[in-house]
Amino acid sequence: MSFTQHLRQIQIKQNSFLCIGLDVDTDKIPPHLKTMKNPALEFNRQIIEATHDLVCAYKPNLAFYETMGEIGITTLRETLKFIPKSILTIGDGKRGDIGNTAERYAKSLFDDFGFDSVTLNPYMGFDSVEPFLSNPEKGVFILALTSNSGSKDFQRLKVGVKPLYEKVVHSAKKWNKKQNIGLVVGATHPTELKRIRKIVPDMPILIPGIGKQGGELKAATQYGCDNHRQLAVINASRSIIYASHGEDFAKAARLEAKKMVEDMRMYVEQLSN
Amino acid sequence: MSFTQHLRQIQIKQNSFLCIGLDVDTDKIPPHLKTMKNPALEFNRQIIEATHDLVCAYKPNLAFYETMGEIGITTLRETLKFIPKSILTIGDGKRGDIGNTAERYAKSLFDDFGFDSVTLNPYMGFDSVEPFLSNPEKGVFILALTSNSGSKDFQRLKVGVKPLYEKVVHSAKKWNKKQNIGLVVGATHPTELKRIRKIVPDMPILIPGIGKQGGELKAATQYGCDNHRQLAVINASRSIIYASHGEDFAKAARLEAKKMVEDMRMYVEQLSN
Repeated sequence: MSFTQHLRQIQIKQNSFLCIGLDVDTDKIPPHLKTMKNPALEFNRQIIEATHDLVCAYKPNLAFYETMGEIGITTLRETLKFIPKSILTIGDGKRGDIGNTAERYAKSLFDDFGFDSVTLNPYMGFDSVEPFLSNPEKGVFILALTSNSGSKDFQRLKVGVKPLYEKVVHSAKKWNKKQNIGLVVGATHPTELKRIRKIVPDMPILIPGIGKQGGELKAATQYGCDNHRQLAVINASRSIIYASHGEDFAKAARLEAKKMVEDMRMYVEQLSN
Repeated sequence: MSFTQHLRQIQIKQNSFLCIGLDVDTDKIPPHLKTMKNPALEFNRQIIEATHDLVCAYKPNLAFYETMGEIGITTLRETLKFIPKSILTIGDGKRGDIGNTAERYAKSLFDDFGFDSVTLNPYMGFDSVEPFLSNPEKGVFILALTSNSGSKDFQRLKVGVKPLYEKVVHSAKKWNKKQNIGLVVGATHPTELKRIRKIVPDMPILIPGIGKQGGELKAATQYGCDNHRQLAVINASRSIIYASHGEDFAKAARLEAKKMVEDMRMYVEQLSN
């Protein structure tokens, strides 16, 4: 089964577009966990335990683990073991390097860590993406139009009549022979998200930028999903995992996640009216 | 002292443009090291010991360490301790992420690992670069025109009359308020290197793609250096560190590095004729 088909199955079963970003920050972990042997791991364990029935995916941003040093790598590895096999994992590292290095990254993230998918930066072109595409069951999300303000600096530059990010979208569509490529489009760009969904009616779109970054959930849901009301993967990180800094953090995360999922279901329902 | 000034000092003292890429690959390490406790670390130690008087910089590609797991992080940390303080270190991770994540990477690479500089991918724009610029002593090399074949896919697309990579060059020049920004330009593009050096007469240029990737050393040297015959940082990885797979690997690496340095000195001499 291709990565895209697998994502459809998960989304049908979970009835959810929600992806929780496991961007665990040792400075923000509730104080009562700090006496534990590995506070970051315990934090993730409780977040996953409290939310796994509400999500289609978890997305650890690799930066937050790498910056912890050796213990971060162990934490990432152990965190992945807590995620049920039926939920998608996205290794968010935004990698991009020449072929022999990209092969290394692909082997590490897919085979050693066991991620189902990763995020990639397209700047270095096809041979930096290709080593990640060989197994149709493993997916990539290629940065198209990112959620941050710097997305205007290069991504929106006009290449002929089209902006650069649209060139990336068309290339990704062309490269998608094995149905294992998706895109990253920030929720902070709803008009462009709508347009991109029309260009790629059947590719997954990972949509960050909801919550702390100011993107609107309604537009992300309604413009992000395909005709089957699938394939939008809407990420929230800080607004969920740091919903409370107290002992009730996991419960608060669940409440926040549940609210988002219910809102998304409502927004999708509105599409038929 | 700014990063760029520091690089000038090192290059005067070492009389060398050579950067050795410490892309240690556990599959390629000479067999006689494999019984040691940490073969990759011992390999790096011997390479550094044999070559440190010939180089201006060492550039570990982070992928090769990350893919080793926890031991890779330790190996990277310990490898950096073997590099004399008088030699520049470049953490080659090609990172690029939104502000709060970029801050994490900057802290980890500059403060925790202690790298003097890092490579960055520009696709996500200024706010993905800015967190790396606050300390003028720490430098960044921004990908402009990379050495791989995929560089044609997006980097060479025309934005108005100029290719995208030139837009990146001009942006980097504008952002370079603290004299701590450099560029990455592959040796496989000599004509463009010459042109870029004219646009940025006083910025460091990291030039990969010599050796295995087919770039020519003469053009890299003559087009890469500035009017003071400095600021080209010419990288070779596999052609030096794997010059021999036998017990003489460090000696063979030194011979290869010495040959490159002598050739570069000759090419620079030719500039005055």
